[in-house]
Amino acid sequence: MHTTVGIIGGGPSGLLLARLLHNAGIDSVVLERRDRPYVEQRQRAGILEQATVDALRAAGAGTRLDAEGLVHDGMELRFDGRAHRVDFPSLAAGRRVWVYAQTEVVKDLIALRLAEGGPLLFDAEVRAVEGVDGDRPVIRYTHEGREQTLTCDYVVGCDGFHGVSRTAVPDHERTTYERTYPYSWLGILAEAPPVYEELVYAHSERGFALASMRSPSVSRLYLQVENGTDPADWPDDRIWDELDARLALSAQPEWRLKRGPVTHKSVLPMRSSVTEPMRYGRLLLAGDAAHIVPPAGAKGLNLAAADVIVLARALAHWSSTGSTALLDTYSDTCLRRVWRAAHFSYFMTTTLHTEPGQSAFDTRLQLSQLHRIADAPHTAATELAENYVGLPLDPRH
Amino acid sequence: MHTTVGIIGGGPSGLLLARLLHNAGIDSVVLERRDRPYVEQRQRAGILEQATVDALRAAGAGTRLDAEGLVHDGMELRFDGRAHRVDFPSLAAGRRVWVYAQTEVVKDLIALRLAEGGPLLFDAEVRAVEGVDGDRPVIRYTHEGREQTLTCDYVVGCDGFHGVSRTAVPDHERTTYERTYPYSWLGILAEAPPVYEELVYAHSERGFALASMRSPSVSRLYLQVENGTDPADWPDDRIWDELDARLALSAQPEWRLKRGPVTHKSVLPMRSSVTEPMRYGRLLLAGDAAHIVPPAGAKGLNLAAADVIVLARALAHWSSTGSTALLDTYSDTCLRRVWRAAHFSYFMTTTLHTEPGQSAFDTRLQLSQLHRIADAPHTAATELAENYVGLPLDPRH
Repeated sequence: MHTTVGIIGGGPSGLLLARLLHNAGIDSVVLERRDRPYVEQRQRAGILEQATVDALRAAGAGTRLDAEGLVHDGMELRFDGRAHRVDFPSLAAGRRVWVYAQTEVVKDLIALRLAEGGPLLFDAEVRAVEGVDGDRPVIRYTHEGREQTLTCDYVVGCDGFHGVSRTAVPDHERTTYERTYPYSWLGILAEAPPVYEELVYAHSERGFALASMRSPSVSRLYLQVENGTDPADWPDDRIWDELDARLALSAQPEWRLKRGPVTHKSVLPMRSSVTEPMRYGRLLLAGDAAHIVPPAGAKGLNLAAADVIVLARALAHWSSTGSTALLDTYSDTCLRRVWRAAHFSYFMTTTLHTEPGQSAFDTRLQLSQLHRIADAPHTAATELAENYVGLPLDPRH
Repeated sequence: MHTTVGIIGGGPSGLLLARLLHNAGIDSVVLERRDRPYVEQRQRAGILEQATVDALRAAGAGTRLDAEGLVHDGMELRFDGRAHRVDFPSLAAGRRVWVYAQTEVVKDLIALRLAEGGPLLFDAEVRAVEGVDGDRPVIRYTHEGREQTLTCDYVVGCDGFHGVSRTAVPDHERTTYERTYPYSWLGILAEAPPVYEELVYAHSERGFALASMRSPSVSRLYLQVENGTDPADWPDDRIWDELDARLALSAQPEWRLKRGPVTHKSVLPMRSSVTEPMRYGRLLLAGDAAHIVPPAGAKGLNLAAADVIVLARALAHWSSTGSTALLDTYSDTCLRRVWRAAHFSYFMTTTLHTEPGQSAFDTRLQLSQLHRIADAPHTAATELAENYVGLPLDPRH
């Protein structure tokens, strides 16, 4: 089989790229290792930046998002027992974010892909990527019990940090930069109304807490926990009690979260990774295959979308003109945004979490930063808002 | 002897306070442990914020500052081999900074104090501060070989971190928050023209460098070095070579600093400390007696000035009305500014220095922050400029 662009991985980046290429008249094949129900049920991110929403709409994938997504015009920061709202549109030139789960984006893109005639192969496990330093790369994969080959003009790796694509770049041609944070998140889905109509990011000496949501009746709640935490050590009541304590407001001592059945519980490590460059010959990396960010900045899914938007433009330019100019700058263009997001994610993470053994001095520094955000709307709060709703697609850095 | 305000320490904070009180018609006595030549020659800070300059002028201590001080409308950041200027007045509502050494401020204030009739006692070593929790505190000191006592209405400790004032607050009444940075500065004074007309703060994988000045013909230059560095291990040529390397610009590979005789060389540790509260009974702490910041934010002298400006107002209010309302809020008012400055100093320090064993990932984060300052004048650069030129005297935090 031959295609113009072989896409390894049927997560949001691979599926969105396939859609964007289809719209540009470029054929592609998407190879996904898992089956469709698995892909459609993976619990991942839930915040879409303005630019991601704009891109999904322009790609014709915005119908259900516009009907069911929740528009958020701000976030709440809680610290020192007080709540402070950061307004997005007034600080960030009218931009905002949407709460719409990655699983829903994936469902929408799969439905579109299948409706437009695919190809999208589930249970297709890539064994090797060969010849990416030549003119005609080959993807070797197994599907329906048989070894298959797909030749392409370009291969795009959208198969995550542990996928085969990243390691298909020779060791001496790539550098992976990494940072591991000394804490994790315990995340739950609960059939309970959200704490507040917007997300609440809480700094507490007990550790960070985040009150997010999936819908007006389903909460997504997170607690900072020690690395290596076993979710079994956190019965539901302990989680609710701890959320009550970390989200407490001095002015409302009787306030408690509304509790409900916990339907999902898991522990997420906090880690950041960037692989450079994002291109080797005719292999291009996108999304988690090239970079991971800790979730406090809500940047992972949005970076993946930004990568494939840049990449689709570059491939369309090559397809229509024969010029590889935009493909040649793909890695540099994306990496500037990636490092900005890595830094912002670091900022959000280290400003809001408590390190094991953190000194009282460093806690005061965090509070000074948070007070500054509350007190300086035109500098510190704008910096937060602009980064959170997402920078324009071609930032200088 | 009796006075209204007994001031321990004849550095810039004690001397400025005495001047402000004199102008408000309140008598005070300044007790300085060292002799006059020693005090007038201590090499310390050299950057005055707008508010500090305004206060010195209003106090009648601005004549030589205005004649000899160098007005700086910006600073230069060097990173990734490039230079980027941060303009102060356009970003920070017209505010700027002055290069005028602390030693010169001290000389001016001593001359004023002696001209107005003192009292300013040199070689006066305070042995004990007693009764500050009562109505009539007593300072016991030795002067001209004799034990002396000074009774006062209020005692102000301007005698630095290692002075007697801070420890005159009972242990159980005070908390000291501290942070030690894992590097030091090697500082030199050199008879050489400055690198650039404004200060140059350089990020380099070899470590931080700062090119400052005392005058158009005297440079003040700093290199990040390991803690415990012996200045003897840094002969002049090694210092100049290292400055050349850290301040290098890609576009001017032949560029070198103009060298000159090195007249002073010393190593400064980087440390931050805040003692709370800044008041205990009739004892008030100001300047380094209450807080130390690492020098990269140029905040130490300016915080000391801000403390005594707030304190002089509070004492004048008490003197004229009998109300202690402003004295009662002195500590909280100052501490908000102190923590903001501690955080900004931390930001400048950790953004520009290289930690021992720092990962390549963390170096990229620093560069992403610096690029953001270069690319986002209205948020990140404004945040830097506002903090650097100094926040208004009564910030909320």
